[in-house]
Amino acid sequence: MQIPSENEIIRRYGVSNTTARKVLQEIEMRGFAVRVKGRGTFVRNVEGSHTVERTLGSLVSTRNGFDSNLIKEGFVPSVQYFEKEIIKEDITFDLNGHIYELNGPIFKIRRLRLSDDIVMKDDTRYIPLNICKGFNQINFDEYDSFLKIYEDHYHLKINKVEQILTTSIMTEEEMEVFKVKEAKSIFNLKGVTLIGSGLICEIETSKYHGDKYRFMVNINN
Amino acid sequence: MQIPSENEIIRRYGVSNTTARKVLQEIEMRGFAVRVKGRGTFVRNVEGSHTVERTLGSLVSTRNGFDSNLIKEGFVPSVQYFEKEIIKEDITFDLNGHIYELNGPIFKIRRLRLSDDIVMKDDTRYIPLNICKGFNQINFDEYDSFLKIYEDHYHLKINKVEQILTTSIMTEEEMEVFKVKEAKSIFNLKGVTLIGSGLICEIETSKYHGDKYRFMVNINN
Repeated sequence: MQIPSENEIIRRYGVSNTTARKVLQEIEMRGFAVRVKGRGTFVRNVEGSHTVERTLGSLVSTRNGFDSNLIKEGFVPSVQYFEKEIIKEDITFDLNGHIYELNGPIFKIRRLRLSDDIVMKDDTRYIPLNICKGFNQINFDEYDSFLKIYEDHYHLKINKVEQILTTSIMTEEEMEVFKVKEAKSIFNLKGVTLIGSGLICEIETSKYHGDKYRFMVNINN
Repeated sequence: MQIPSENEIIRRYGVSNTTARKVLQEIEMRGFAVRVKGRGTFVRNVEGSHTVERTLGSLVSTRNGFDSNLIKEGFVPSVQYFEKEIIKEDITFDLNGHIYELNGPIFKIRRLRLSDDIVMKDDTRYIPLNICKGFNQINFDEYDSFLKIYEDHYHLKINKVEQILTTSIMTEEEMEVFKVKEAKSIFNLKGVTLIGSGLICEIETSKYHGDKYRFMVNINN
């Protein structure tokens, strides 16, 4: 839940701006709320479990994006850029037995997605630059999700997303990335995003912290 | 792929019934095919990996059922009944934070689903007997899936299926059930099947062998 801004508090409750600022500082200091740069102040989620639930198989939920979902739930999202690279050659992907080919140049971006300093997702995407020209120059912070960039910035019509989910136990390398001392299980998500013409605009190969995620699937008849 | 029956071989190739029978015995003996009681002879899947892919979020694929899918892929399915029990009391289920209540009497059935003697799924369902009267008396082998029983036998209109997928590392008890010496990761699937009136006709709490499964999710725009 979002907390009213300083100006709203002044207007609504008829208090001075000193009082309004003190109130906001106080609730943040006590850990009840958190200020997110450029977005406002939000009630903080102080539940013990820190598990988030995400809907699979929904374009709407993919569009919403990682950070917005967490902020709504009272967590503090952050991102660490791990790799940004332009690959000149074509790449062939074997997504669990399904073969896809991307033509170079391809922008590879690997980001760690955190929530309250817990590593939630190790997120890797491959975007062919002949479809999304200049994608590597974009300020990603201005968009909720990559899907929004394809739709709003490049005016691409997303036709289909195919995702394959497997599970495994963390390797030592993955334990380092997720900053855990004991191996946990992880979800491995591999996804292909296709645009109207049948071309691929994104390949995703991401890992989710198995202890922190649950996925929901809804079937309506 | 299904292999022609003895009679079809006789008719198609103009051979004697002794020859036809010998051919079928030979290909089965050499491990190329397998006879499934009441269904015919099928080309056997001899791939090393033994991983199966299942579509999540699809009623059609839920309807097809466990055994039929495996047979089509050249595996030999089998089932071990673990528990069959009628619970008289009401039960409250906490499916990862979502609370559901079932009114007794409830039929609980727990089955191990195998493929070529590998334990693939530990499958537990709870079916309220006031919605599916006499469910415990049904010969399940006659139906592809429980969903088919609800639809074809009880003429229930399935409205919605909600599934929640988590992952964890096998406990020692789970290692015994799945007959593995080293702990593997598992998928935990919890599902609620709702009929038109909003009533619950089934609650599922199943475990999938994480090394043997991959789940596919398709999003069409």
